[in-house]
Amino acid sequence: MPVFKAEELERVAFNILKAAGTQEYEAKIVSENLIKSNLYGHDSHGIINLPRYIRSILKGELKLGIKAKVVNETPSTAVLDGGFGFGFLLGKQAMEMAIEKAKKTGIGMVSLFNTTHTGRVGEYPELALKHNMIGFAIGGGSLKGSVAVFGGATKIFGTNPLSVSIPTLNERPILVDMATSVAAGGKIRVAQARGEKVPLGWILDSEGRQTTDPAQREVMLPWGGYKGAAIQIINHTLGILACPARDEKRGGFIFMAINIDVFRSVDEFKEDVDELIRTVKASKKMPGVKDILIAGEPEYNTREKRLKEGIPIEEETWKDLKSVAEEVGLDLKKFLKTKDLSS
Amino acid sequence: MPVFKAEELERVAFNILKAAGTQEYEAKIVSENLIKSNLYGHDSHGIINLPRYIRSILKGELKLGIKAKVVNETPSTAVLDGGFGFGFLLGKQAMEMAIEKAKKTGIGMVSLFNTTHTGRVGEYPELALKHNMIGFAIGGGSLKGSVAVFGGATKIFGTNPLSVSIPTLNERPILVDMATSVAAGGKIRVAQARGEKVPLGWILDSEGRQTTDPAQREVMLPWGGYKGAAIQIINHTLGILACPARDEKRGGFIFMAINIDVFRSVDEFKEDVDELIRTVKASKKMPGVKDILIAGEPEYNTREKRLKEGIPIEEETWKDLKSVAEEVGLDLKKFLKTKDLSS
Repeated sequence: MPVFKAEELERVAFNILKAAGTQEYEAKIVSENLIKSNLYGHDSHGIINLPRYIRSILKGELKLGIKAKVVNETPSTAVLDGGFGFGFLLGKQAMEMAIEKAKKTGIGMVSLFNTTHTGRVGEYPELALKHNMIGFAIGGGSLKGSVAVFGGATKIFGTNPLSVSIPTLNERPILVDMATSVAAGGKIRVAQARGEKVPLGWILDSEGRQTTDPAQREVMLPWGGYKGAAIQIINHTLGILACPARDEKRGGFIFMAINIDVFRSVDEFKEDVDELIRTVKASKKMPGVKDILIAGEPEYNTREKRLKEGIPIEEETWKDLKSVAEEVGLDLKKFLKTKDLSS
Repeated sequence: MPVFKAEELERVAFNILKAAGTQEYEAKIVSENLIKSNLYGHDSHGIINLPRYIRSILKGELKLGIKAKVVNETPSTAVLDGGFGFGFLLGKQAMEMAIEKAKKTGIGMVSLFNTTHTGRVGEYPELALKHNMIGFAIGGGSLKGSVAVFGGATKIFGTNPLSVSIPTLNERPILVDMATSVAAGGKIRVAQARGEKVPLGWILDSEGRQTTDPAQREVMLPWGGYKGAAIQIINHTLGILACPARDEKRGGFIFMAINIDVFRSVDEFKEDVDELIRTVKASKKMPGVKDILIAGEPEYNTREKRLKEGIPIEEETWKDLKSVAEEVGLDLKKFLKTKDLSS
């Protein structure tokens, strides 16, 4: 598998986006976001998706230069119509609006509909960290998804993701970023691109049978039994709340920022979260458990490793990137220092 | 097991509370709340807990006639110091305050610390339903709990419950009410009171070994693998946010109300939630699955049944109630119509 430096991949993404007609600021935000997903080890939300975004731009489905329109607003809330602009920019706009509202009233909640793919959902709550806020982003509301309900064998839900970030003092921030399916849809696509099998219990085929072949995926299985089903339905319903465009049944996103300062001393809160993390890490372990990981640790650990060692990109994804670059009239070799990988 | 009518049990609870010195309104709210838990099948949060509340009152730990004090307030948020009043009343006060704020700014979030046991957490979000709001109640923040972290064998967390209620048009409301442990602490106490075993995977004994004997419970196991651990840590951190009383490490609660009306048409939202429920119920089932249940259905079904057939109370709980009634100078026979059960 070819391995690239983060900045190299970011340059590739940036230039493909520019060549497809995006503004400079759009190309910058999207390329940084994509490569951050790869650095975090969320390859399913990384540069693998760029070709489909570009093709979506070329088809006119994903509209460039769009800012979401405010449909309704109160001191603490807003409803945004994304107008099918770039989901990465719409999500950022919505989260930043929630943060601004939380500065004034203690809490901000902003809904977003008519959006295209927003990429890694964890990107948005992370924006709240430097403002000493807890960030939430939740997606749902689509009944045209590919995830079953607990006990069901029919595809119904989207992956209804939940992402939360929590600031800390000296420890690394807590970062939850999870789908309510057993595995994110993109993980199955990555396995398929790499010719790998997926574990039993992830997917069903078109006959409703369990399979390990990602190409046979018809239904994705939900996580967590009846309690997981409860989280799934909460997220789904918040997606319904976010999406007044009924015919579409596309669903939507809710972004929320909670201003710690209106509840208690920010520093003391952060110290208490640090203490929590240290307590959990110091827990006696069950037999066979090597390390107890806090939400966000796998991402931070992978980023450290990949900043040093580079980001592996599967051959099929690299081919697809070269092909989409050609479609927008770009020669990728110009942007690569790793000459032997640019063939 | 003796079986009582709901109103009979409520009268028993009301009069024991009155005899222990509570005001009429306190006794009414607490007794209704307790018996509602029994009707819902949450016996772990029902009248089984009344004796320990009464003894807590007699010891002066649970203070009567207390209203929570507002420590800090913004248009959308408030911080409440419960002063160790009756958790049932403090929770109601906090949730009602969140609802009032949501009427004005679209969303209300109220934290509560220095509270005694709040009973069934689902009680509070349910208060938001008639206001056409989505209600949330989340508890956490205690590091003196009995639940392990995923992969751990040491007790650390509280049960860090999450409860959410979502209004509907013609379907029954969605009601999530779950602990982030595999089983609620009270369920283990109920099993012990009934001399029953608990399933393997619920608890560890003092040596860190799996056991099915509820009396040997030292550590409760968490639900849901690493994703469940993420929900657990989110709830825990919101409890930290709610509790500025650092020395105590008792944790606290967050109550939130979201005003549907500021996001979209309330009726259309409710219709969409109804459609969601019908879609899920109509799903093709996995082999061996008889019925797909929506969060709240088990509670509503049990309530229907118990309103007709009565509420079974284990002998040990009934003995304990008679004994605590004597401690407050009350003869339970006076309040029971079911004469043969009052011996």
